[in-house]
Amino acid sequence: MIRFGLVIYVVALLAGIIALFMIFPFIIALMDGDAASIRAFGITIILNIVLSSLIYFVSKKRVKHKSLRVREGFMLVTMSWAAASAIGAVPFVLSGAIPSYTNAFFETISGFTTTGASILTEIESLPRAVLFWRSLTHWLGGMGIVVLTVAILPFLGAGGVQLVRAESPGPTLDKMAPNITQTAKILWYIYLGFTVLEIILLMLGGMNWFDSLTHTFGTLATGGFSTKNASVGAYNSAYFDWVITIFMIMAGMNFGLFHKLLRGRFRDILKNTEFVAYAAIVAFASLFITGFLIKTYGSFGNALRYAAFQVASIITTTGYATADFELWPAAAKGMLFLMMFIGGCSGSTGGGPKVIRVVGLLKLALNEMKYLARPRGVFRIRLDGNPVKKDFIYSISGFFMLYFTALMVVTLIVTSFGSDIITGFTSALATVGNIGPGFGMVGPAMNYSFFHPIVKWVLSAAMLIGRLEVYTVIILLTPSFWSRR
Amino acid sequence: MIRFGLVIYVVALLAGIIALFMIFPFIIALMDGDAASIRAFGITIILNIVLSSLIYFVSKKRVKHKSLRVREGFMLVTMSWAAASAIGAVPFVLSGAIPSYTNAFFETISGFTTTGASILTEIESLPRAVLFWRSLTHWLGGMGIVVLTVAILPFLGAGGVQLVRAESPGPTLDKMAPNITQTAKILWYIYLGFTVLEIILLMLGGMNWFDSLTHTFGTLATGGFSTKNASVGAYNSAYFDWVITIFMIMAGMNFGLFHKLLRGRFRDILKNTEFVAYAAIVAFASLFITGFLIKTYGSFGNALRYAAFQVASIITTTGYATADFELWPAAAKGMLFLMMFIGGCSGSTGGGPKVIRVVGLLKLALNEMKYLARPRGVFRIRLDGNPVKKDFIYSISGFFMLYFTALMVVTLIVTSFGSDIITGFTSALATVGNIGPGFGMVGPAMNYSFFHPIVKWVLSAAMLIGRLEVYTVIILLTPSFWSRR
Repeated sequence: MIRFGLVIYVVALLAGIIALFMIFPFIIALMDGDAASIRAFGITIILNIVLSSLIYFVSKKRVKHKSLRVREGFMLVTMSWAAASAIGAVPFVLSGAIPSYTNAFFETISGFTTTGASILTEIESLPRAVLFWRSLTHWLGGMGIVVLTVAILPFLGAGGVQLVRAESPGPTLDKMAPNITQTAKILWYIYLGFTVLEIILLMLGGMNWFDSLTHTFGTLATGGFSTKNASVGAYNSAYFDWVITIFMIMAGMNFGLFHKLLRGRFRDILKNTEFVAYAAIVAFASLFITGFLIKTYGSFGNALRYAAFQVASIITTTGYATADFELWPAAAKGMLFLMMFIGGCSGSTGGGPKVIRVVGLLKLALNEMKYLARPRGVFRIRLDGNPVKKDFIYSISGFFMLYFTALMVVTLIVTSFGSDIITGFTSALATVGNIGPGFGMVGPAMNYSFFHPIVKWVLSAAMLIGRLEVYTVIILLTPSFWSRR
Repeated sequence: MIRFGLVIYVVALLAGIIALFMIFPFIIALMDGDAASIRAFGITIILNIVLSSLIYFVSKKRVKHKSLRVREGFMLVTMSWAAASAIGAVPFVLSGAIPSYTNAFFETISGFTTTGASILTEIESLPRAVLFWRSLTHWLGGMGIVVLTVAILPFLGAGGVQLVRAESPGPTLDKMAPNITQTAKILWYIYLGFTVLEIILLMLGGMNWFDSLTHTFGTLATGGFSTKNASVGAYNSAYFDWVITIFMIMAGMNFGLFHKLLRGRFRDILKNTEFVAYAAIVAFASLFITGFLIKTYGSFGNALRYAAFQVASIITTTGYATADFELWPAAAKGMLFLMMFIGGCSGSTGGGPKVIRVVGLLKLALNEMKYLARPRGVFRIRLDGNPVKKDFIYSISGFFMLYFTALMVVTLIVTSFGSDIITGFTSALATVGNIGPGFGMVGPAMNYSFFHPIVKWVLSAAMLIGRLEVYTVIILLTPSFWSRR
């Protein structure tokens, strides 16, 4: 049995926290004397605190055992992101920045899931308070994802980090600190430290504080919302491009590795199969694309700058752009298309299938071939130097099937509303994979505003499904989840 | 150690058989008084018989133990298809029908692998002998595939049927007859019976004997070569469309099931998980597309005729067309795109990943969710009513990963030569999946002639890789296959 009271109690707590974070855009609205935003954020904060306190205290009494059961956990995680998006969308509507609630919800869930797909056609004319809140949803979502994948999903038995941890002693986050709360704290400090560092580096390069903050939020959460219509390309600065490229790559790494780095355990990082594969893929893809861009951008250095930025942006599922890659040579687009199927590392803020799953299945395939060639041999799949167990293979195989099924269902729905296949398939990839831009009508110079409202709701669901590692949401749709047996 | 002598010995035998089958187009050339074709097939037959006999008798002496070792089997199967294509391409070049050997090889391997992708821009002006040989490669390839997937791959430990057989007593072909030769014979009789039946049905509808034969070859092999520029659409006949639709669907079924049907074991067929899923997918997809085509084709019946034909053609990987589906509504194209990822049933002449593998992984994913919701529960994946073992899951997971990797590598190479992503990705899907047509520049009204020669060779390899169930070819590229350990 699922205790809905308990779930609502925790969600109400979360809603209150979100209201507190809305104080930041509220302050910016006050600074700018922006009456519409002051009203919008003011009303949302007050209503939110009043309502969530009411629910919180009413449901608190009724909830006795506060330790979550497994199935309650799945429901709670899904409800949290959905509720945060439902509440976070309100100021967009009230301020008049995004009059349609469908659009506002799409934009907010795109923020909280760190997708970065936007329905806005004109960004720069929006009030700063609204743009700040839009970027802040990324940063909060990224923070939530770190806790989710590191502390909550492993507890529920799902999610990337747990998969590795259960089978091999790689980046064993539970060894970092004795309990979940402490683990989460350490990772938050790292996240916060990187945030401060990137803001300083961007400001040192001459970016104003507002743009530095919003772009840092988008980078570290691997989100992708920019305050410029032309995304990071608007600055046309090699310095900003490289700073953001490096921080995107860092945001796509397992945060547990940084903790090891801080402790000086450099060797552990080179032994980490996922990190080594991630680094190799980023380097190879960047050089591959650079080769095709030298003509377009004149020099190797310049081509590398654009190539590395876009590779980092797509593989980490950030979605920033410094160029309209729809106009790049076909080979460059082909490589970016491939990157869309990989995603960041487990335990990062990046989305997509994750490097560890891709590497795990590739190793399985190679192992199967060894076995076919020598049926009497004994072969083991190793990650981080340790053999993996069958549960790991089952889990990632099932994951890929669900992920792929989600992609196909979304493609079918999008094309049912008249989009061509490349738009349909890459909008599915870009939302389930939390990337943001795709190809065709959802390319980097386009946006999601033209879709039918139903498609927008479906893509909103797709972002949530992808962000919560597919299992977490889909499991709520299975009859066996609800059966009392 | 691999005994190349033995491999060459068997390949020479196969080359001789191919020369014998070239007598059919040779006879047609004689009937038509077609001097160029008489010369082309005459020279090829004589050279082929002389050379292969020489190699056969020389290598025969040196080969002592004739029972194949596992690794020799993989090499033999790959070499057989490659050699058959290399030899089969010769008359195309000698007759002047396809002057470039690259194009001729592409066309021939497309025939033998039952892909049906063509580099011909104008088909109807070609001599009948050449067209007959082109279609006959399909029929021979289809025959080869039945033996391969039913008798040879299971022996080597790879391939769809074996996967199921090893784990569940579904369509256990080895139970049909005590040994491989007898099993192959029964299946050949079924294949031959269907061939005769379809030829008769087409001729009863008024199709001439030549077109009836060639289109039957293309149907039962799930190949797709037509003797008309507009494919089956050229006849514009509801009767022909339905006959071919039904035979395509039958060709995509496990041939072992027909043997059961002949014995009156109808219940076994309804218990067969793969067949039930296949029937359900074909029915659902046809009705889905019909809904979007009623406007285009006026009535439900007419829309169903075009929808069912195209669904059957794509899921069975035949590739015939009665309409340019590139011009259909986006939703219809989206559904056909989805069908490209499924393929026929195991033990059929169809290509693609196969229904049983898709169903197997979907069941695994559902099972994983049951397990996540109730970690202490015991859940089993069942196919045909029997639980499957971990080797089956490992094998299909590894298969999908290799299949997907092949798709990605081919996409990357095709786009590297300047094709757009939809052309690149669907040409990969259409060749690795042995379908034939894709979308974009390789749509049903287009052909593969415009590709760079290197791309044609890569796509030729892709057809072979897909046809031989990925493992069989890729395994030859792994270092461990060649190591002496």
